Amino acid sequence: MAETKKTTIVLFSGDYDKAMAAYIIANGAAAYDHEVTIFHTFWGLNALRKEENVMVKKGFLEMMFGKMMPRGADKMGISKMNFAGFGPKLIKNVIKKHNALTLPQLIEMAQEQDIKLVACTMTMDLLGLQQEELLDNIEYAGVAAYLADAEVGNVNLFI
Amino acid sequence: MAETKKTTIVLFSGDYDKAMAAYIIANGAAAYDHEVTIFHTFWGLNALRKEENVMVKKGFLEMMFGKMMPRGADKMGISKMNFAGFGPKLIKNVIKKHNALTLPQLIEMAQEQDIKLVACTMTMDLLGLQQEELLDNIEYAGVAAYLADAEVGNVNLFI
Amino acid sequence: MAETKKTTIVLFSGDYDKAMAAYIIANGAAAYDHEVTIFHTFWGLNALRKEENVMVKKGFLEMMFGKMMPRGADKMGISKMNFAGFGPKLIKNVIKKHNALTLPQLIEMAQEQDIKLVACTMTMDLLGLQQEELLDNIEYAGVAAYLADAEVGNVNLFI
Repeated sequence: MAETKKTTIVLFSGDYDKAMAAYIIANGAAAYDHEVTIFHTFWGLNALRKEENVMVKKGFLEMMFGKMMPRGADKMGISKMNFAGFGPKLIKNVIKKHNALTLPQLIEMAQEQDIKLVACTMTMDLLGLQQEELLDNIEYAGVAAYLADAEVGNVNLFI
Repeated sequence: MAETKKTTIVLFSGDYDKAMAAYIIANGAAAYDHEVTIFHTFWGLNALRKEENVMVKKGFLEMMFGKMMPRGADKMGISKMNFAGFGPKLIKNVIKKHNALTLPQLIEMAQEQDIKLVACTMTMDLLGLQQEELLDNIEYAGVAAYLADAEVGNVNLFI
Repeated sequence: MAETKKTTIVLFSGDYDKAMAAYIIANGAAAYDHEVTIFHTFWGLNALRKEENVMVKKGFLEMMFGKMMPRGADKMGISKMNFAGFGPKLIKNVIKKHNALTLPQLIEMAQEQDIKLVACTMTMDLLGLQQEELLDNIEYAGVAAYLADAEVGNVNLFI
């Protein structure tokens, strides 16, 4: 019996378009029976934030980060042609027109396909993000767990 | 007999310097007998656009994207120090001075070395790019074909 | 006996946060007994620059690049929320507050862990950077050496 293939993606970027690419590759790999992990670190964590404002106790710096960073996938900007927020609307229009999936829909599909969504605990600590602020049914881990997945992976990407 | 090594690069970025890095690695790998694929997606597709304006029927949104995005490798901006278009000129001067290859030359070399240049059909659909607007002798495929290449690859990069 | 695992990272980016991610993964992999190489190319070379101004003879273009690019890891900007240099200070405050390592400390740790730090000679040539301007105890190589490392690697990333 063939061994299960593994795809492991570090999602570092907080850009809507880059996160889309990550989730499209991840969902594709899961459809082809890969075991897939997306390890969200730095700005990539924003894709896992809940849309609503969750009240948690924070220091001043952490509160500032929380305010400045987009709350959830739908609020993220794009890496090119952002045009003060106009670009993402354009992209979303184009997605709707072509019946393609938006980023929140891609994330939902990833959860349905049992893709392992991991939040980097070191970054959460640095940026002051707490578990209550992130989506349900995700995992929490550090660089050691990432490396354990990646070192036996077939497709490793940093996005 | 040793098995052929494979290098598979996703070129997501539309930046001149990042595309240069992708094509330098790809050309190097081909010179060392790797089977090499560059899968152009999102803004990376711009590297494959023809320089001349190709008349094709498009919807309004697609026409806007077509106008706003650079037409071909030579028109792409750089990721750092773009300085409103001055940066790319500086880079190109430096390339000329050192007899290095420009991005269009690197792409030509890639085609001569039989590197498989693939345009992501899903992105073409989203951005409204049509085959007539892209270079000749490239292939068209989706994420499934990318994964089939990548999962048996030795060097997989997302650029 | 198990074979030694290899991690090979291309550091293309000149952003403080991306370089941090690269060095955190690299130091983690070295701690788990991987043989680790970081290949610094394009703007990633700036992480290896000495902080002090080293006097070397240069052409005009090369002098301009030298002036415009950050001198060393501590001077690098961040990829998101740079806010005209305010972002990096915020990040550094947060790092200090959480007793995490700064980028210069991560680079020092990498050298202590015998991570192979390589400067891309082609980029040095293009940007006019000379060995005297870069940290001691690093190696100099081109894309061929990178590929030789990467093609037998377990974890290959482009950052």
